[in-house]
Amino acid sequence: MIDAYQASSQARVNAALEPLFVAPSPEMTRLYEAMRYSVMNGGKRVRPLLAYAACEALGAPAAEANGAACAVELIHAYSLVHDDLPAMDDDDLRRGQPTTHKAFDEAYAILAGDGLQSLAFSALLDPRLSSVNAEIRLRMVTALAHAAGPAGMVGGQAIDMGSVSLKLDQKALEHMHRHKTGALIEAAVQLGALASGRAETAQLAALHTYSRAIGLAFQVQDDILDVESDTATLGKRQGADIARDKPTYPALLGLEAAKAYAIELRDQALDALRPFDAAAEPLRDLARYIVERRH
Amino acid sequence: MIDAYQASSQARVNAALEPLFVAPSPEMTRLYEAMRYSVMNGGKRVRPLLAYAACEALGAPAAEANGAACAVELIHAYSLVHDDLPAMDDDDLRRGQPTTHKAFDEAYAILAGDGLQSLAFSALLDPRLSSVNAEIRLRMVTALAHAAGPAGMVGGQAIDMGSVSLKLDQKALEHMHRHKTGALIEAAVQLGALASGRAETAQLAALHTYSRAIGLAFQVQDDILDVESDTATLGKRQGADIARDKPTYPALLGLEAAKAYAIELRDQALDALRPFDAAAEPLRDLARYIVERRH
Repeated sequence: MIDAYQASSQARVNAALEPLFVAPSPEMTRLYEAMRYSVMNGGKRVRPLLAYAACEALGAPAAEANGAACAVELIHAYSLVHDDLPAMDDDDLRRGQPTTHKAFDEAYAILAGDGLQSLAFSALLDPRLSSVNAEIRLRMVTALAHAAGPAGMVGGQAIDMGSVSLKLDQKALEHMHRHKTGALIEAAVQLGALASGRAETAQLAALHTYSRAIGLAFQVQDDILDVESDTATLGKRQGADIARDKPTYPALLGLEAAKAYAIELRDQALDALRPFDAAAEPLRDLARYIVERRH
Repeated sequence: MIDAYQASSQARVNAALEPLFVAPSPEMTRLYEAMRYSVMNGGKRVRPLLAYAACEALGAPAAEANGAACAVELIHAYSLVHDDLPAMDDDDLRRGQPTTHKAFDEAYAILAGDGLQSLAFSALLDPRLSSVNAEIRLRMVTALAHAAGPAGMVGGQAIDMGSVSLKLDQKALEHMHRHKTGALIEAAVQLGALASGRAETAQLAALHTYSRAIGLAFQVQDDILDVESDTATLGKRQGADIARDKPTYPALLGLEAAKAYAIELRDQALDALRPFDAAAEPLRDLARYIVERRH
Protein backbone atom coordinates (compact mmCIF):
# COMPACT_ATOMS: atom_id res chain seq x y z
CA MET A 1 0.00 0.00 0.00
CA ILE A 2 2.64 2.52 1.07
CA ASP A 3 4.87 1.19 -1.72
CA ALA A 4 2.41 2.35 -4.37
CA TYR A 5 1.90 5.72 -2.70
CA GLN A 6 5.65 6.13 -2.29
CA ALA A 7 6.21 5.31 -5.96
CA SER A 8 3.62 7.81 -7.12
CA SER A 9 4.92 10.52 -4.75
CA GLN A 10 8.44 9.88 -5.96
CA ALA A 11 7.39 10.13 -9.61
CA ARG A 12 5.34 13.25 -8.89
CA VAL A 13 8.07 15.14 -7.07
CA ASN A 14 10.76 14.04 -9.52
CA ALA A 15 8.69 15.43 -12.38
CA ALA A 16 8.30 18.72 -10.50
CA LEU A 17 12.00 18.88 -9.55
CA GLU A 18 13.50 18.02 -12.93
CA PRO A 19 12.80 21.36 -14.69
CA LEU A 20 14.49 23.27 -11.84
CA PHE A 21 17.93 22.08 -12.98
CA VAL A 22 18.14 23.76 -16.35
CA ALA A 23 21.11 26.14 -16.32
CA PRO A 24 20.14 29.70 -17.37
CA SER A 25 23.51 30.21 -19.05
CA PRO A 26 26.18 27.81 -20.34
CA GLU A 27 28.81 28.92 -17.78
CA MET A 28 26.54 27.61 -15.02
CA THR A 29 26.13 24.16 -16.51
CA ARG A 30 28.46 22.46 -14.05
CA LEU A 31 26.79 24.06 -11.00
CA TYR A 32 23.37 22.93 -12.22
CA GLU A 33 24.77 19.47 -12.94
CA ALA A 34 26.11 19.30 -9.39
CA MET A 35 22.71 20.33 -8.02
CA ARG A 36 20.90 17.83 -10.22
CA TYR A 37 23.33 15.09 -9.22
CA SER A 38 22.71 15.88 -5.55
CA VAL A 39 18.93 15.72 -5.88
CA MET A 40 18.05 13.30 -8.70
CA ASN A 41 19.74 10.34 -7.07
CA GLY A 42 16.99 7.79 -6.55
CA GLY A 43 16.07 9.06 -3.09
CA LYS A 44 12.98 7.61 -1.44
CA ARG A 45 11.39 11.07 -1.17
CA VAL A 46 9.94 10.51 2.28
CA ARG A 47 9.51 14.23 2.94
CA PRO A 48 7.68 14.89 -0.34
CA LEU A 49 5.49 11.86 0.40
CA LEU A 50 4.59 13.47 3.74
CA ALA A 51 3.75 16.77 2.08
CA TYR A 52 1.51 15.08 -0.52
CA ALA A 53 -0.14 12.82 2.06
CA ALA A 54 -0.86 15.73 4.43
CA CYS A 55 -2.37 17.73 1.56
CA GLU A 56 -4.57 14.79 0.57
CA ALA A 57 -5.51 14.12 4.21
CA LEU A 58 -7.22 17.50 4.11
CA GLY A 59 -9.10 16.62 0.94
CA ALA A 60 -7.06 18.55 -1.63
CA PRO A 61 -5.32 17.03 -4.67
CA ALA A 62 -1.71 15.99 -4.03
CA ALA A 63 -0.52 18.18 -6.91
CA GLU A 64 -1.32 21.28 -4.83
CA ALA A 65 1.61 20.30 -2.62
CA ASN A 66 4.18 20.19 -5.43
CA GLY A 67 5.89 23.38 -4.26
CA ALA A 68 5.99 22.13 -0.66
CA ALA A 69 7.28 18.71 -1.74
CA CYS A 70 10.05 20.18 -3.90
CA ALA A 71 11.05 22.67 -1.21
CA VAL A 72 11.49 20.14 1.60
CA GLU A 73 13.35 17.73 -0.68
CA LEU A 74 15.70 20.48 -1.87
CA ILE A 75 16.47 21.45 1.73
CA HIS A 76 17.03 17.79 2.60
CA ALA A 77 19.31 17.30 -0.41
CA TYR A 78 21.40 20.38 0.37
CA SER A 79 21.82 19.26 3.98
CA LEU A 80 23.14 15.87 2.84
CA VAL A 81 25.62 17.45 0.43
CA HIS A 82 27.04 19.67 3.17
CA ASP A 83 26.91 16.93 5.85
CA ASP A 84 29.00 14.68 3.60
CA LEU A 85 31.81 17.25 3.20
CA PRO A 86 35.26 16.35 4.54
CA ALA A 87 35.00 18.97 7.30
CA MET A 88 31.67 17.45 8.42
CA ASP A 89 30.96 13.69 8.26
CA ASP A 90 33.52 13.10 5.49
CA ASP A 91 31.47 10.50 3.61
CA ASP A 92 32.50 9.23 0.18
CA LEU A 93 29.30 7.34 -0.57
CA ARG A 94 25.63 8.25 -0.45
CA ARG A 95 23.09 5.63 -1.56
CA GLY A 96 26.00 3.65 -3.01
CA GLN A 97 27.11 6.51 -5.27
CA PRO A 98 30.00 8.97 -4.85
CA THR A 99 28.95 11.96 -2.74
CA THR A 100 28.76 15.32 -4.52
CA HIS A 101 32.21 16.49 -3.41
CA LYS A 102 33.64 13.21 -4.73
CA ALA A 103 31.77 13.31 -8.05
CA PHE A 104 32.53 17.03 -8.53
CA ASP A 105 34.79 18.72 -5.97
CA GLU A 106 34.47 20.37 -2.58
CA ALA A 107 33.94 23.86 -3.93
CA TYR A 108 31.11 22.69 -6.18
CA ALA A 109 29.59 20.71 -3.31
CA ILE A 110 29.55 23.81 -1.12
CA LEU A 111 28.05 25.93 -3.90
CA ALA A 112 25.54 23.29 -5.01
CA GLY A 113 24.31 23.00 -1.42
CA ASP A 114 24.03 26.77 -1.10
CA GLY A 115 22.18 26.98 -4.39
CA LEU A 116 19.78 24.19 -3.44
CA GLN A 117 18.79 26.03 -0.29
CA SER A 118 17.86 29.16 -2.28
CA LEU A 119 16.11 27.00 -4.85
CA ALA A 120 13.92 25.51 -2.11
CA PHE A 121 12.48 28.94 -1.38
CA SER A 122 12.05 29.67 -5.07
CA ALA A 123 10.19 26.36 -5.51
CA LEU A 124 7.86 27.12 -2.62
CA LEU A 125 6.89 30.39 -4.29
CA ASP A 126 6.70 29.07 -7.85
CA PRO A 127 3.14 29.71 -9.04
CA ARG A 128 3.38 26.62 -11.26
CA LEU A 129 3.88 24.43 -8.20
CA SER A 130 0.99 25.52 -6.00
CA SER A 131 -2.02 27.82 -6.10
CA VAL A 132 -2.68 28.94 -2.52
CA ASN A 133 -3.04 32.62 -1.71
CA ALA A 134 -0.28 34.97 -0.58
CA GLU A 135 -1.13 34.78 3.12
CA ILE A 136 -0.84 30.99 3.20
CA ARG A 137 2.26 31.02 1.05
CA LEU A 138 3.93 33.39 3.50
CA ARG A 139 3.14 31.03 6.36
CA MET A 140 4.77 28.26 4.34
CA VAL A 141 7.93 30.28 3.70
CA THR A 142 8.13 31.27 7.36
CA ALA A 143 7.74 27.65 8.46
CA LEU A 144 10.36 26.43 6.00
CA ALA A 145 12.91 29.10 6.92
CA HIS A 146 12.45 28.28 10.60
CA ALA A 147 12.65 24.50 10.10
CA ALA A 148 15.71 24.70 7.86
CA GLY A 149 17.55 27.33 9.85
CA PRO A 150 19.69 27.64 12.95
CA ALA A 151 16.71 27.13 15.29
CA GLY A 152 15.82 23.98 13.31
CA MET A 153 17.81 21.60 11.11
CA VAL A 154 21.10 23.52 11.06
CA GLY A 155 20.90 23.92 14.83
CA GLY A 156 20.35 20.18 15.18
CA GLN A 157 23.39 19.52 13.05
CA ALA A 158 25.44 21.77 15.33
CA ILE A 159 24.13 19.97 18.42
CA ASP A 160 24.99 16.64 16.79
CA MET A 161 28.55 17.78 16.03
CA GLY A 162 28.98 18.91 19.60
CA SER A 163 27.69 15.64 21.05
CA VAL A 164 30.06 13.12 19.46
CA SER A 165 31.75 11.20 22.28
CA LEU A 166 29.38 12.77 24.81
CA LYS A 167 27.09 10.57 26.88
CA LEU A 168 23.74 12.13 26.00
CA ASP A 169 20.68 11.10 27.97
CA GLN A 170 17.43 10.35 26.16
CA LYS A 171 16.12 13.88 26.56
CA ALA A 172 19.27 15.41 25.08
CA LEU A 173 19.29 12.88 22.23
CA GLU A 174 15.68 13.69 21.38
CA HIS A 175 16.39 17.39 21.51
CA MET A 176 19.12 16.84 18.93
CA HIS A 177 17.00 14.66 16.62
CA ARG A 178 13.96 16.91 16.95
CA HIS A 179 16.06 19.64 15.37
CA LYS A 180 18.41 17.75 13.06
CA THR A 181 15.82 15.58 11.29
CA GLY A 182 12.51 16.28 13.04
CA ALA A 183 12.19 19.93 12.10
CA LEU A 184 12.15 19.25 8.36
CA ILE A 185 9.80 16.26 8.68
CA GLU A 186 7.41 18.44 10.70
CA ALA A 187 7.74 21.16 8.06
CA ALA A 188 6.94 18.68 5.28
CA VAL A 189 3.63 17.84 6.95
CA GLN A 190 2.77 21.44 7.85
CA LEU A 191 3.64 22.75 4.39
CA GLY A 192 1.68 19.99 2.69
CA ALA A 193 -1.31 20.71 4.93
CA LEU A 194 -1.08 24.46 4.30
CA ALA A 195 -0.81 23.83 0.55
CA SER A 196 -4.29 22.27 0.67
CA GLY A 197 -5.63 25.77 1.26
CA ARG A 198 -8.11 24.41 3.76
CA ALA A 199 -6.14 23.52 6.89
CA GLU A 200 -7.84 24.47 10.16
CA THR A 201 -5.86 25.22 13.31
CA ALA A 202 -6.91 22.04 15.11
CA GLN A 203 -5.97 19.96 12.07
CA LEU A 204 -2.55 21.59 11.86
CA ALA A 205 -2.02 20.85 15.55
CA ALA A 206 -3.02 17.18 15.15
CA LEU A 207 -0.73 16.84 12.14
CA HIS A 208 2.05 18.46 14.12
CA THR A 209 1.68 15.81 16.84
CA TYR A 210 1.70 13.13 14.14
CA SER A 211 4.84 14.51 12.52
CA ARG A 212 6.75 14.87 15.78
CA ALA A 213 6.03 11.23 16.59
CA ILE A 214 6.98 9.81 13.19
CA GLY A 215 10.04 12.05 12.97
CA LEU A 216 11.36 10.53 16.14
CA ALA A 217 10.21 7.01 15.20
CA PHE A 218 12.12 7.38 11.94
CA GLN A 219 15.30 8.22 13.83
CA VAL A 220 14.90 5.47 16.41
CA GLN A 221 14.37 2.95 13.61
CA ASP A 222 17.39 4.33 11.74
CA ASP A 223 19.52 3.71 14.82
CA ILE A 224 18.11 0.18 15.12
CA LEU A 225 18.83 -0.53 11.45
CA ASP A 226 22.34 0.84 11.81
CA VAL A 227 22.95 -1.92 14.35
CA GLU A 228 21.05 -4.70 12.58
CA SER A 229 21.50 -4.24 8.84
CA ASP A 230 24.50 -5.05 6.76
CA THR A 231 26.21 -2.54 4.52
CA ALA A 232 24.76 -3.92 1.29
CA THR A 233 21.13 -3.43 2.34
CA LEU A 234 21.67 -0.05 3.90
CA GLY A 235 23.97 1.47 1.25
CA LYS A 236 26.28 2.85 3.90
CA ARG A 237 28.73 1.34 6.33
CA GLN A 238 26.99 -0.76 8.96
CA GLY A 239 27.54 0.40 12.52
CA ALA A 240 28.83 3.72 11.19
CA ASP A 241 27.20 5.72 13.98
CA ILE A 242 28.54 3.49 16.70
CA ALA A 243 31.98 3.45 15.08
CA ARG A 244 32.00 7.25 15.39
CA ASP A 245 30.84 7.03 18.96
CA LYS A 246 27.67 8.93 18.14
CA PRO A 247 24.84 8.52 20.62
CA THR A 248 22.07 6.16 19.45
CA TYR A 249 18.83 4.82 20.92
CA PRO A 250 19.98 1.19 21.04
CA ALA A 251 23.13 2.29 22.85
CA LEU A 252 21.09 4.35 25.27
CA LEU A 253 18.03 2.16 25.88
CA GLY A 254 19.15 -1.27 24.73
CA LEU A 255 18.01 -2.77 21.42
CA GLU A 256 14.70 -4.26 22.61
CA ALA A 257 13.64 -1.13 24.49
CA ALA A 258 14.52 0.95 21.43
CA LYS A 259 12.22 -1.26 19.32
CA ALA A 260 9.41 -0.88 21.86
CA TYR A 261 9.90 2.87 21.82
CA ALA A 262 9.58 2.99 18.02
CA ILE A 263 6.26 1.12 18.30
CA GLU A 264 5.04 3.52 20.99
CA LEU A 265 5.84 6.49 18.77
CA ARG A 266 4.00 4.87 15.85
CA ASP A 267 0.93 4.52 18.06
CA GLN A 268 1.15 8.15 19.14
CA ALA A 269 1.21 9.11 15.49
CA LEU A 270 -1.82 6.96 14.67
CA ASP A 271 -3.73 8.37 17.67
CA ALA A 272 -3.16 11.89 16.44
CA LEU A 273 -4.82 10.98 13.13
CA ARG A 274 -8.09 9.74 14.72
CA PRO A 275 -10.08 12.85 13.77
CA PHE A 276 -9.18 12.31 10.10
CA ASP A 277 -11.09 10.19 7.59
CA ALA A 278 -9.88 7.67 5.04
CA ALA A 279 -8.04 10.40 3.12
CA ALA A 280 -5.37 10.22 5.85
CA GLU A 281 -4.66 6.56 5.11
CA PRO A 282 -1.31 7.23 3.39
CA LEU A 283 -0.16 9.08 6.52
CA ARG A 284 -1.23 6.09 8.63
CA ASP A 285 0.49 3.66 6.27
CA LEU A 286 3.68 5.63 6.52
CA ALA A 287 3.61 5.56 10.34
CA ARG A 288 3.29 1.78 10.18
CA TYR A 289 5.96 1.45 7.52
CA ILE A 290 8.56 3.50 9.40
CA VAL A 291 8.90 0.92 12.18
CA GLU A 292 8.63 -2.09 9.82
CA ARG A 293 11.16 -1.04 7.18
CA ARG A 294 14.45 -2.92 6.85
CA HIS A 295 16.47 -0.13 5.19
CA MET B 1 27.11 63.44 3.34
CA ILE B 2 27.20 59.75 2.44
CA ASP B 3 29.34 59.17 5.55
CA ALA B 4 26.53 60.29 7.84
CA TYR B 5 23.94 58.26 5.94
CA GLN B 6 26.24 55.24 5.96
CA ALA B 7 26.77 55.58 9.71
CA SER B 8 23.06 55.82 10.43
CA SER B 9 22.25 52.87 8.08
CA GLN B 10 24.96 50.82 9.74
CA ALA B 11 23.63 51.60 13.23
CA ARG B 12 20.07 50.90 12.10
CA VAL B 13 20.77 47.53 10.51
CA ASN B 14 23.09 46.46 13.32
CA ALA B 15 20.33 47.16 15.85
CA ALA B 16 17.91 45.08 13.77
CA LEU B 17 20.42 42.25 13.27
CA GLU B 18 21.66 41.91 16.83
CA PRO B 19 18.55 40.22 18.32
CA LEU B 20 18.66 37.53 15.61
CA PHE B 21 21.71 35.92 17.21
CA VAL B 22 20.23 34.78 20.50
CA ALA B 23 20.53 31.00 20.69
CA PRO B 24 17.16 29.31 21.43
CA SER B 25 18.88 26.59 23.49
CA PRO B 26 22.28 26.38 25.19
CA GLU B 27 23.57 23.59 22.92
CA MET B 28 23.30 25.99 19.98
CA THR B 29 25.35 28.74 21.60
CA ARG B 30 28.46 28.09 19.54
CA LEU B 31 26.53 28.04 16.24
CA TYR B 32 24.89 31.35 17.07
CA GLU B 33 28.26 32.76 18.15
CA ALA B 34 29.72 31.72 14.80
CA MET B 35 26.82 33.39 12.97
CA ARG B 36 27.13 36.55 15.07
CA TYR B 37 30.90 36.61 14.50
CA SER B 38 30.35 36.32 10.75
CA VAL B 39 27.87 39.20 10.63
CA MET B 40 28.68 41.65 13.44
CA ASN B 41 32.16 42.39 12.19
CA GLY B 42 32.21 46.09 11.46
CA GLY B 43 31.08 45.69 7.86
CA LYS B 44 30.26 48.85 5.92
CA ARG B 45 26.69 47.62 5.30
CA VAL B 46 26.52 48.89 1.72
CA ARG B 47 23.62 46.58 0.82
CA PRO B 48 21.50 47.65 3.82
CA LEU B 49 22.28 51.27 2.97
CA LEU B 50 20.92 50.65 -0.54
CA ALA B 51 17.75 49.08 0.85
CA TYR B 52 17.14 51.98 3.23
CA ALA B 53 17.98 54.60 0.61
CA ALA B 54 15.66 52.99 -1.99
CA CYS B 55 12.86 52.87 0.56
CA GLU B 56 13.37 56.55 1.43
CA ALA B 57 13.66 57.49 -2.24
CA LEU B 58 10.02 56.42 -2.54
CA GLY B 59 9.00 58.55 0.44
CA ALA B 60 8.69 55.86 3.13
CA PRO B 61 10.61 55.83 6.43
CA ALA B 62 13.89 53.90 6.28
CA ALA B 63 12.77 51.66 9.16
CA GLU B 64 10.22 50.01 6.83
CA ALA B 65 13.19 48.42 5.06
CA ASN B 66 14.67 46.80 8.17
CA GLY B 67 13.66 43.31 7.03
CA ALA B 68 15.06 43.90 3.55
CA ALA B 69 18.29 45.38 4.96
CA CYS B 70 18.85 42.48 7.35
CA ALA B 71 18.04 39.91 4.68
CA VAL B 72 20.52 41.17 2.09
CA GLU B 73 23.26 41.61 4.69
CA LEU B 74 22.72 38.06 6.01
CA ILE B 75 22.98 36.66 2.48
CA HIS B 76 26.11 38.72 1.88
CA ALA B 77 27.64 37.55 5.16
CA TYR B 78 26.92 33.88 4.48
CA SER B 79 28.46 34.16 1.01
CA LEU B 80 31.66 35.60 2.47
CA VAL B 81 31.91 32.83 5.10
CA HIS B 82 31.60 30.14 2.43
CA ASP B 83 33.82 31.98 -0.09
CA ASP B 84 36.61 32.13 2.50
CA LEU B 85 36.59 28.34 3.10
CA PRO B 86 39.75 26.38 2.23
CA ALA B 87 38.01 24.63 -0.67
CA MET B 88 36.99 28.01 -2.09
CA ASP B 89 39.21 31.13 -1.83
CA ASP B 90 41.05 29.84 1.27
CA ASP B 91 41.29 33.20 3.01
CA ASP B 92 42.50 33.50 6.61
CA LEU B 93 41.60 37.15 7.06
CA ARG B 94 38.47 39.19 6.44
CA ARG B 95 38.50 42.88 7.38
CA GLY B 96 41.74 42.21 9.27
CA GLN B 97 40.13 39.55 11.49
CA PRO B 98 40.38 35.75 11.31
CA THR B 99 37.76 34.36 8.93
CA THR B 100 34.97 32.27 10.50
CA HIS B 101 36.60 28.91 9.75
CA LYS B 102 39.80 30.20 11.41
CA ALA B 103 38.05 31.66 14.47
CA PHE B 104 35.80 28.56 14.83
CA ASP B 105 36.42 25.64 12.48
CA GLU B 106 35.43 24.57 8.99
CA ALA B 107 32.37 22.63 10.10
CA TYR B 108 31.03 25.61 12.04
CA ALA B 109 31.79 27.91 9.12
CA ILE B 110 29.79 25.69 6.77
CA LEU B 111 26.89 25.48 9.23
CA ALA B 112 26.98 29.15 10.17
CA GLY B 113 26.79 30.06 6.48
CA ASP B 114 23.91 27.66 5.93
CA GLY B 115 22.08 29.04 8.95
CA LEU B 116 22.60 32.64 7.88
CA GLN B 117 20.98 31.91 4.52
CA SER B 118 17.84 30.57 6.23
CA LEU B 119 17.90 33.45 8.67
CA ALA B 120 17.85 35.90 5.77
CA PHE B 121 14.46 34.56 4.68
CA SER B 122 13.19 34.58 8.26
CA ALA B 123 14.27 38.21 8.66
CA LEU B 124 12.51 39.22 5.46
CA LEU B 125 9.27 37.77 6.82
CA ASP B 126 9.66 38.99 10.40
CA PRO B 127 6.63 41.21 11.12
CA ARG B 128 8.77 43.27 13.51
CA LEU B 129 11.06 44.25 10.65
CA SER B 130 8.57 45.49 8.07
CA SER B 131 4.87 46.09 7.68
CA VAL B 132 4.03 45.60 3.98
CA ASN B 133 1.23 43.29 2.96
CA ALA B 134 1.54 39.62 2.07
CA GLU B 135 1.54 40.17 -1.70
CA ILE B 136 4.48 42.56 -1.56
CA ARG B 137 6.32 40.41 0.95
CA LEU B 138 6.03 37.44 -1.40
CA ARG B 139 7.54 39.49 -4.21
CA MET B 140 10.40 40.32 -1.86
CA VAL B 141 11.01 36.67 -0.96
CA THR B 142 10.88 35.66 -4.61
CA ALA B 143 13.37 38.37 -5.55
CA LEU B 144 15.74 37.44 -2.73
CA ALA B 145 15.65 33.71 -3.48
CA HIS B 146 16.38 34.41 -7.14
CA ALA B 147 19.18 36.89 -6.42
CA ALA B 148 20.86 34.65 -3.85
CA GLY B 149 20.44 31.40 -5.73
CA PRO B 150 22.04 29.47 -8.58
CA ALA B 151 20.67 31.85 -11.22
CA GLY B 152 22.09 34.77 -9.19
CA MET B 153 24.90 35.09 -6.65
CA VAL B 154 25.74 31.38 -6.31
CA GLY B 155 25.77 31.05 -10.09
CA GLY B 156 28.14 34.00 -10.30
CA GLN B 157 30.43 32.36 -7.78
CA ALA B 158 30.47 29.22 -9.93
CA ILE B 159 31.26 31.23 -13.06
CA ASP B 160 34.07 32.99 -11.18
CA MET B 161 35.55 29.66 -10.05
CA GLY B 162 35.46 28.39 -13.60
CA SER B 163 37.12 31.50 -15.01
CA VAL B 164 40.36 31.61 -13.02
CA SER B 165 43.25 31.58 -15.51
CA LEU B 166 40.81 32.07 -18.39
CA LYS B 167 41.11 35.11 -20.60
CA LEU B 168 37.60 36.52 -20.24
CA ASP B 169 36.50 39.35 -22.48
CA GLN B 170 34.62 42.31 -21.03
CA LYS B 171 31.23 40.81 -21.78
CA ALA B 172 32.06 37.55 -19.99
CA LEU B 173 33.57 39.42 -17.04
CA GLU B 174 30.44 41.53 -16.68
CA HIS B 175 28.25 38.46 -16.90
CA MET B 176 30.20 36.99 -13.99
CA HIS B 177 30.05 40.14 -11.85
CA ARG B 178 26.41 40.79 -12.65
CA HIS B 179 25.66 37.48 -10.99
CA LYS B 180 28.33 37.20 -8.32
CA THR B 181 27.94 40.65 -6.77
CA GLY B 182 25.41 42.48 -8.93
CA ALA B 183 22.42 40.24 -8.21
CA LEU B 184 22.44 40.96 -4.48
CA ILE B 185 23.04 44.69 -4.95
CA GLU B 186 20.10 44.81 -7.34
CA ALA B 187 18.02 42.85 -4.84
CA ALA B 188 18.94 45.28 -2.04
CA VAL B 189 17.51 48.16 -4.06
CA GLN B 190 14.42 46.27 -5.24
CA LEU B 191 13.64 44.91 -1.76
CA GLY B 192 14.10 48.33 -0.17
CA ALA B 193 11.83 49.88 -2.80
CA LEU B 194 9.19 47.18 -2.34
CA ALA B 195 9.38 47.61 1.44
CA SER B 196 8.17 51.18 0.98
CA GLY B 197 4.80 49.71 0.05
CA ARG B 198 4.39 52.32 -2.66
CA ALA B 199 6.74 51.33 -5.46
CA GLU B 200 5.31 51.75 -8.97
CA THR B 201 6.48 49.65 -11.90
CA ALA B 202 8.30 52.51 -13.64
CA GLN B 203 10.05 53.42 -10.41
CA LEU B 204 11.18 49.82 -9.88
CA ALA B 205 12.52 49.76 -13.43
CA ALA B 206 14.46 53.02 -12.96
CA LEU B 207 15.90 51.76 -9.67
CA HIS B 208 16.86 48.52 -11.39
CA THR B 209 18.84 50.47 -13.99
CA TYR B 210 20.47 52.44 -11.17
CA SER B 211 21.42 49.30 -9.24
CA ARG B 212 22.86 47.51 -12.27
CA ALA B 213 25.09 50.48 -12.97
CA ILE B 214 26.34 50.94 -9.42
CA GLY B 215 26.78 47.19 -8.93
CA LEU B 216 29.15 47.11 -11.85
CA ALA B 217 30.80 50.41 -10.87
CA PHE B 218 31.44 48.94 -7.42
CA GLN B 219 33.21 45.97 -8.96
CA VAL B 220 35.26 48.01 -11.41
CA GLN B 221 36.38 50.28 -8.57
CA ASP B 222 37.21 47.23 -6.42
CA ASP B 223 39.47 45.96 -9.18
CA ILE B 224 41.10 49.38 -9.46
CA LEU B 225 41.65 49.55 -5.71
CA ASP B 226 43.09 46.06 -5.73
CA VAL B 227 45.82 47.38 -8.00
CA GLU B 228 46.33 50.77 -6.32
CA SER B 229 45.79 50.32 -2.58
CA ASP B 230 48.17 48.85 -0.07
CA THR B 231 47.24 46.00 2.24
CA ALA B 232 46.84 48.18 5.34
CA THR B 233 44.15 50.41 3.79
CA LEU B 234 42.25 47.58 2.13
CA GLY B 235 42.39 45.01 4.94
CA LYS B 236 43.31 42.24 2.51
CA ARG B 237 46.37 41.38 0.49
CA GLN B 238 47.03 43.96 -2.21
CA GLY B 239 47.03 42.57 -5.72
CA ALA B 240 45.34 39.41 -4.47
CA ASP B 241 43.13 39.06 -7.54
CA ILE B 242 46.01 39.48 -9.97
CA ALA B 243 48.17 37.08 -7.95
CA ARG B 244 45.46 34.46 -8.44
CA ASP B 245 45.26 35.26 -12.13
CA LYS B 246 41.62 36.29 -11.78
CA PRO B 247 40.30 38.49 -14.57
CA THR B 248 40.01 42.19 -13.61
CA TYR B 249 38.94 45.38 -15.38
CA PRO B 250 42.37 47.06 -15.16
CA ALA B 251 43.94 43.91 -16.63
CA LEU B 252 41.35 43.86 -19.41
CA LEU B 253 40.93 47.54 -20.25
CA GLY B 254 44.04 49.15 -18.78
CA LEU B 255 43.94 51.19 -15.58
CA GLU B 256 42.91 54.54 -17.08
CA ALA B 257 40.16 53.07 -19.22
CA ALA B 258 38.88 51.16 -16.20
CA LYS B 259 38.66 54.45 -14.27
CA ALA B 260 36.80 56.09 -17.14
CA TYR B 261 34.41 53.14 -17.24
CA ALA B 262 33.63 53.50 -13.53
CA ILE B 263 32.78 57.18 -14.11
CA GLU B 264 30.56 56.27 -17.05
CA LEU B 265 28.66 53.76 -14.90
CA ARG B 266 28.20 56.35 -12.16
CA ASP B 267 26.66 58.72 -14.70
CA GLN B 268 24.32 56.00 -15.94
CA ALA B 269 23.20 55.49 -12.35
CA LEU B 270 22.60 59.22 -11.81
CA ASP B 271 20.66 59.45 -15.07
CA ALA B 272 18.34 56.68 -13.97
CA LEU B 273 17.47 58.70 -10.85
CA ARG B 274 16.36 61.82 -12.75
CA PRO B 275 12.63 61.18 -12.21
CA PHE B 276 13.19 61.09 -8.43
CA ASP B 277 13.10 64.08 -6.08
CA ALA B 278 15.46 65.05 -3.26
CA ALA B 279 14.50 61.93 -1.27
CA ALA B 280 16.77 60.00 -3.64
CA GLU B 281 19.81 62.06 -2.65
CA PRO B 282 21.39 59.24 -0.57
CA LEU B 283 21.23 56.97 -3.63
CA ARG B 284 22.90 59.70 -5.69
CA ASP B 285 25.55 60.26 -3.02
CA LEU B 286 26.31 56.55 -2.99
CA ALA B 287 26.79 56.45 -6.76
CA ARG B 288 29.29 59.30 -6.45
CA TYR B 289 31.02 57.71 -3.47
CA ILE B 290 31.55 54.33 -5.15
CA VAL B 291 33.96 55.71 -7.72
CA GLU B 292 35.66 58.08 -5.25
CA ARG B 293 36.32 55.69 -2.37
CA ARG B 294 39.87 54.61 -1.54
CA HIS B 295 39.00 51.31 0.20
